[in-house]
This record gives sequence, C-alpha cells and structure tokens, in this order.
Amino acid sequence: MHDNYSKVLLDESEMPTQWYNVIPDLPEPPPPPLHPGTLQPIGPDDLAPLFPMALIMQEVSTDSYIDIPGEVLDIYRLWRPSPLLRARRLEKALDTPAKIFLKYEGVSPAGSHKPNTAVPQAFYNAQEGVKRLTTETGAGQWGSALAFATAQFGLECEVWQVRASYDQKPYRKTMMEIWGATLHPSPSDLTEAGRAILAADPDSPGSLGIAISEAVEQAVQRDDTRYALGSVLNHVLLHQTIIGEEALLQLAKVEETPDVLVGCTGGGSNFGGLSFPFLREKLAGRMDPTIRCVEPASCPSLTRGEYRYDFGDTGQLTPLVKMHTLGHSFIPDPIHAGGLRYHGMSPLVSHVYELGLLEAEAIGQNECFAAGLEFARTEGIIPAPEPTHAIAATIREAVGCRESGEAKVILTALCGHGHLDLGAYEQYLAGELEDFDYPAEKVAEAMARIPVIA
Amino acid sequence: MHDNYSKVLLDESEMPTQWYNVIPDLPEPPPPPLHPGTLQPIGPDDLAPLFPMALIMQEVSTDSYIDIPGEVLDIYRLWRPSPLLRARRLEKALDTPAKIFLKYEGVSPAGSHKPNTAVPQAFYNAQEGVKRLTTETGAGQWGSALAFATAQFGLECEVWQVRASYDQKPYRKTMMEIWGATLHPSPSDLTEAGRAILAADPDSPGSLGIAISEAVEQAVQRDDTRYALGSVLNHVLLHQTIIGEEALLQLAKVEETPDVLVGCTGGGSNFGGLSFPFLREKLAGRMDPTIRCVEPASCPSLTRGEYRYDFGDTGQLTPLVKMHTLGHSFIPDPIHAGGLRYHGMSPLVSHVYELGLLEAEAIGQNECFAAGLEFARTEGIIPAPEPTHAIAATIREAVGCRESGEAKVILTALCGHGHLDLGAYEQYLAGELEDFDYPAEKVAEAMARIPVIA
Repeated sequence: MHDNYSKVLLDESEMPTQWYNVIPDLPEPPPPPLHPGTLQPIGPDDLAPLFPMALIMQEVSTDSYIDIPGEVLDIYRLWRPSPLLRARRLEKALDTPAKIFLKYEGVSPAGSHKPNTAVPQAFYNAQEGVKRLTTETGAGQWGSALAFATAQFGLECEVWQVRASYDQKPYRKTMMEIWGATLHPSPSDLTEAGRAILAADPDSPGSLGIAISEAVEQAVQRDDTRYALGSVLNHVLLHQTIIGEEALLQLAKVEETPDVLVGCTGGGSNFGGLSFPFLREKLAGRMDPTIRCVEPASCPSLTRGEYRYDFGDTGQLTPLVKMHTLGHSFIPDPIHAGGLRYHGMSPLVSHVYELGLLEAEAIGQNECFAAGLEFARTEGIIPAPEPTHAIAATIREAVGCRESGEAKVILTALCGHGHLDLGAYEQYLAGELEDFDYPAEKVAEAMARIPVIA
Repeated sequence: MHDNYSKVLLDESEMPTQWYNVIPDLPEPPPPPLHPGTLQPIGPDDLAPLFPMALIMQEVSTDSYIDIPGEVLDIYRLWRPSPLLRARRLEKALDTPAKIFLKYEGVSPAGSHKPNTAVPQAFYNAQEGVKRLTTETGAGQWGSALAFATAQFGLECEVWQVRASYDQKPYRKTMMEIWGATLHPSPSDLTEAGRAILAADPDSPGSLGIAISEAVEQAVQRDDTRYALGSVLNHVLLHQTIIGEEALLQLAKVEETPDVLVGCTGGGSNFGGLSFPFLREKLAGRMDPTIRCVEPASCPSLTRGEYRYDFGDTGQLTPLVKMHTLGHSFIPDPIHAGGLRYHGMSPLVSHVYELGLLEAEAIGQNECFAAGLEFARTEGIIPAPEPTHAIAATIREAVGCRESGEAKVILTALCGHGHLDLGAYEQYLAGELEDFDYPAEKVAEAMARIPVIA
C-alpha cells in the first residue's frame, strides 16, 4: 500500500462469506421477546406469520457464524466489498493528529447499508415460497433497499411510507417504483391500524411506529405475504456485520487498529453491523477500542430512554421486547435524519449497552449538518443526514485529539449518501434548520403509556 | 480473479499517472480553430483571456502522454480508479451470449465523469494565480463537478445555469452551493449576452449556447477570472482519457478484448475519454474494436449535422471550430439528457469520425429510458439520462448477438448515476415522456445561420 492512500479496497474474492453473531460471545444473553398476550417468551412459531423460518432461526441462533448463501453473495458483489475511506483532507482541515477512517456504504444501489439485509431477507422469503413482502419506510432508505432486493428475486413489494416523507420526498418514491414496488402513504385506509389513526386525526403526518403496524397487519392477513423489518431485530444486525468484518480486513491491510469506533444509532443496525465484529475482538482481548453510539438530541433512546419491555410499534401488534425506549407512542420531531426517528433501540444494542460495553452521546441537528457540510467540502461525498451524526461525533473526537495531541485511530460508518436529502442541506444553508431539543414532556407522556411488566 | 466476478477493481497504486493525447497517433491532425475576426488560426495568446497557459499548451500539445500532477492524483484518489462492472444480470435478462462491461464513473463526488477534468482545470488555474472560475451548466453535472473541484483549491466558482434546469432541478443547485459555488440562472441581466436574449424574450428558458456566452463574457472582463469548459475541447478530452486507460488495464486483468465499444456523445468528452486509448490500440493493430457514438435522436450532430466551421456558443464569442454542428443558434428540444443537448460535437471527435474511425447512431428518448429501467432492475444502478443512450445502444448490440449467436465483448461507459434525475424516470413510468424526433425545420433554420468560411 502506498503511503498516501485515500481508500482501502478489497477484491471480491476477499469478501467475507459469513455473518457474525455476537450473542454467544456476550457474558450473558439478551432477555427474550415476550408474547403480548401471555407475557411468556415467544417461540419460533409465534413469529411464523411474519417471517420465513430461516430468518426466525437466525433471530434465535446461538451459532457464532452463519454462512452467507451464494445467491446473496452474487448480489452483494454488485457493490461489495465497500470501500474504507481515509479522510485525509478532513484531518488536515481539522488540524488533528487523529487518523479518520470511514466505512462507506453509500455505494450500494439504494445508497445506504440497508441492502445488506434487504437482499438476504428477500432471498430467504423467496426460497420459502413467499410471493410478497410488506414493509414500512420513513425517509425511504429502507423501502428502496427492499424494493431493489425484491426485484432481484421476483417478489412483489408493498411499502407503507410515513405520510410526511411520502409528500416531501417524491424522488424516493420514484426510486422504489423504478425497482417495481407499490407505495402507500401511511396512515392509509387499507388497514385497521391506519383507519384508527385517521379517525382520530385525518391529517396525521404518520410515524414509523404507525407504518410498522400497517405493514405487519397486512402481512399477517395474507398467506403468501410476509413482513420485512429494516433494523432493530437480531437477524437484521447479523446481516449488517459484513460491514464490520470487511472493515477489520481493510484496517489490517494498512496495519491500523481503531482506538475509537463511533456509529449513528436509529434502530441500531448500521451501528451493530459496524461494531459487533470489533466488539468480538475487544472481548477476546485482541484490541481495546472505545465503542460509542451517536443519536439525535431530539430522539435519544439510549441516553434518555428507559431499559424496559415495550412494543416495537404504535399499534401494539409486535411482541414486547426489552430495549431502551422513549415509549411506543412517542412521535419524534421531524428531523431530517428520518432513519434515526424511532422510539426504541435494537434490543441487542440495548443489552450490550447495559453490559457496559458501549458509550452513547446525543447531538443536535445543526451541529450534524455543519459536520456534513465540512465533510462534503473536504472529502467530496455528501453524507445522508443519519451519518452526519457519526461525522459530528468523529469531528468532536478528532478535535479532542488536536487538543490532547493524541494520534488516535477513529473508525466510523458513512452509512449512506445524501443525494436524495439535498432539500435538508438547502434548509441548513439558508439557516432555516430547527435544532429540536430533547422533548421532555412528550417523552414523559409516552413513557407513561408503556405497559408495566411484572 | 474468480469466475463469477461482478466488477474489476484496480488498486490506487495501479491508477494511470498520464493522460493520453490521441492527436499524434492520427493519420492527420484536426483543422485548427479560427479567430472569428481574422479567420486565421488562433494562437495560444488569443486564448489567454479564457484559460491558463498550462491548459492552452495541452490544447495544442503534440505529446502523446502528459503527466498528471500529484495534486490532481491526490484528489482523483477520492474515487478513482473507478470500477469496471460486468453486467451479468442484464446479460441473463437479455439471454445474450455477449459479455457486457461498463466503466462506471458515477462513483465520483458529483456523480459523473466530469470531475476528471474539473479537478485538473481548477488545479492549473490555481497554480497560475487565478482567483475565480466561471462556467455554464445545463442539467448541472458539469457545474457541480467544477464546484467540487474549485472547493479543493480555494477558488471561487460562478455558474450560469440554463434557466429551465435552474427552475426544474433545485437539488443540483443545492449540490453546487454545498461545495460553495454561486449560481445565476441564464439568461441573466449580469451580462450583455444575457440582456440581449432577455430583451428579445423575457421568459427565455435559456440554452447551453447562451450560458456559455455569459460565462465567457464574465471571464474575459475580469483579470483574476478565467473560464472553464466541461467538454468539447482537446484538453478536456485529454483529461477524460483516464477512463479508457483504466478500462484497458481492467479488461486485461480478466483477459478480455472489446469487440464493440459504445459511448454516448454530447460534447464528446465521455466518449473521447473512454474510446481514445482503445483507438490507439486499434491504430497500432493490437485490437480491432468497432467504436460507436450514440446521440439523441432530437440532437444528432454527428448523424445529421454538417462538418464545418461554426461557433461554440449562441453569442458568437468563441473561436470558430470545425465540427459536426446543427448550427450555433439551434436550441435542442428539452430531453432529460441535458448533457447531450449541445448543437455541436467536439472538433476532435468530429475529425476522428471524418477519418472513418468511428460509427454513429441516434436513439430516441423513450427507448433510452426503457433501457435505463431494465438496467436499474437487473444491475441495481439507476443511470443518468445521458448514459441511458449508451445502455440502449449496448442492448441493441447484445440483442443482435442473441440473434447471431456471437459472444461479443461489449464495452460502454456508465458516465453517471441518475439520483438527481428521478423526476425524468417518474415521467417515463407515468408514460408521459415525449420522444422528440429529429427537428428538421429548426435545424435547417439554424444551419442557415452558420457563418460561411471561404
């Protein structure tokens, strides 16, 4: 490797062929999901109306490694291995001795890390004879990833998109339609969950929690249809570990070991995907990075939420999962990082956080967009609003290094580009972006509605 | 290389470090540009108000290779070498024995091949003490590339954007502003050229020819300001040859030689960049590919234009260049491939075409978008409207192979992604895209206005 490299590439033949399951390596397993009726741990059969059995088995797997099917590897190769960037121009602009590395997932067709799990989810469903997948999407990153993936396996795809995003982001809708998906603004009158919301508020802007209820309801009611979730669950985080496994190989190529690892957290899949392979190395004593989650100040489930059993959706259709939550009825303020507007946090990330293996911090929207702009002007890539949180935290760390003189190696994930989020940058450039502080009252109200589990 | 590769990558250390100048290898040199007043060949000094001397020397160079400066290589490395894709899923969908390769330039910050020349242009200007660059842009690909490049060297950047695009594509405007550029809709009241157009038609939608006049006028009038052109000229095509040089190395890695090479042509820079290194190989007898230009049916300068001296701009401010032209006053119909809406063709590409070394064909808008959609659904990447022309021609060729049974190796350039052109796909999906046939009357009218050179 020459000395002034800007990115570290892997050949396709070097791409990992297994996903990593962190659960067996943890000092204790995460608490099980509970059936909302019986409050007993749910079994695989309870999930069968929602997911194909292969994914349910991955959800509860105690194997450390799971082989990636060849059909999935074939599609991964359309964009994977993804590049590891060294942000030399940002380092110089910050005048920091730190070395900044970013694992860049914006090279995927949908422009984010989401296809890493959309592709295997579509594959396993197709393999078990499912004809149609339903899902929800906020800003549209997940919906477009699933639309792309289902197109590869000849499945139909129906997406409930949060009404506010459906109206504001027509181009994401077009992207999903290019890949053949059918879209419904949520709340819709196609589901009981949607009709209930519309009866109370005909102009409801929707939320991820509502859209999940609608997609789940439709999947449960049709035999040939299953549901796909883009984050939160164990099998989703499992599929995303290819990010961290590749990054490990890439850092080894340039003989670097991370001192600090930061990732933005919405549902937790980008963060888990990047960090879990490094957590394995840390637990095995082969490296000792600080691992830090970054979340929006307006939706801070880790730093301000409670760790308790709650529903994953507004309509209370999902199992109860133990996680850091702001309450399933909490509707976050309309920050542009739509992928981080979720009331809860992945149960697995929540559990690892409770074990004391992770740190967390929350950052406001304007600091994040300032970081995104500085990154775009130095490194060229315009980040999606979600990873501007990771970049803002990286800049905080690198500025700390300037002050302390430490030449830390910082690794983060640039989980998507912002080509379909330029309206948000336009608002920022015009000085019209709201910061949205922690909404204490709204959270207190939603917390009070969390079911009390004895 | 494993057998079922999807892309061929080069390490940064394998990136070419020289641009290739095809002129010395041609059987005869292209005719010189003429001074519009004296009708004599122009010399370097005539161009000094417009360009820095380093670029003027490249424009008239007779060297076969020119070293790429280290500062330019450093920035190229942010996204180069770019991947060479093997479109296996498209091949399968077409049931063709042909092998389809695409050199993908959408990985650059601006999302197209344009930064390959924007970066060296900004570099040489900065090196000669220029403070500000002016330019024109249509759909915004070139303007955003120059905005990105000037940001890397601390230059100011002023962009005259064709009014129709300025109004229709606010996100491209935001992208340019993210990188610090100042935008003016064209025609503007800031220039004589613009005011003259506005006096005749206050609602003029503008054209590339008009915007060039405005940017040139502003550059000439200010000592610290120069002009940058994104296509057409020799030095621009020179910088783009890194595309073809990389593709040669990549095909060699998988032991393939192209039988057919197709590229879309607007001003000719993407096409020249891809094809000239292969033309060198062809002229030297080391391979014998058919090399084919693809242009829009509504703006077919090579297949329907005349080869004669004409102005590069509507305002008649540029030198006269010998090229295939539909007439400098021709305003093309509003197809979505804004980068192909130019009345002329690069003099160098025109000359090579006259020498009988190239073929050309013209394709209508709807066939191109159908090809773009098929590509997106099979290969994942959503192409910009310009390269849908190259993909449509590639599909024609691959279907021909299905019928003839020939296993040809086809190489084309996917010169940009379509993330900022989704509105065009939306129209296509709704069946609302006009085809715009050859506008014979408008062309005849514009042809009559071409100056007659004795």
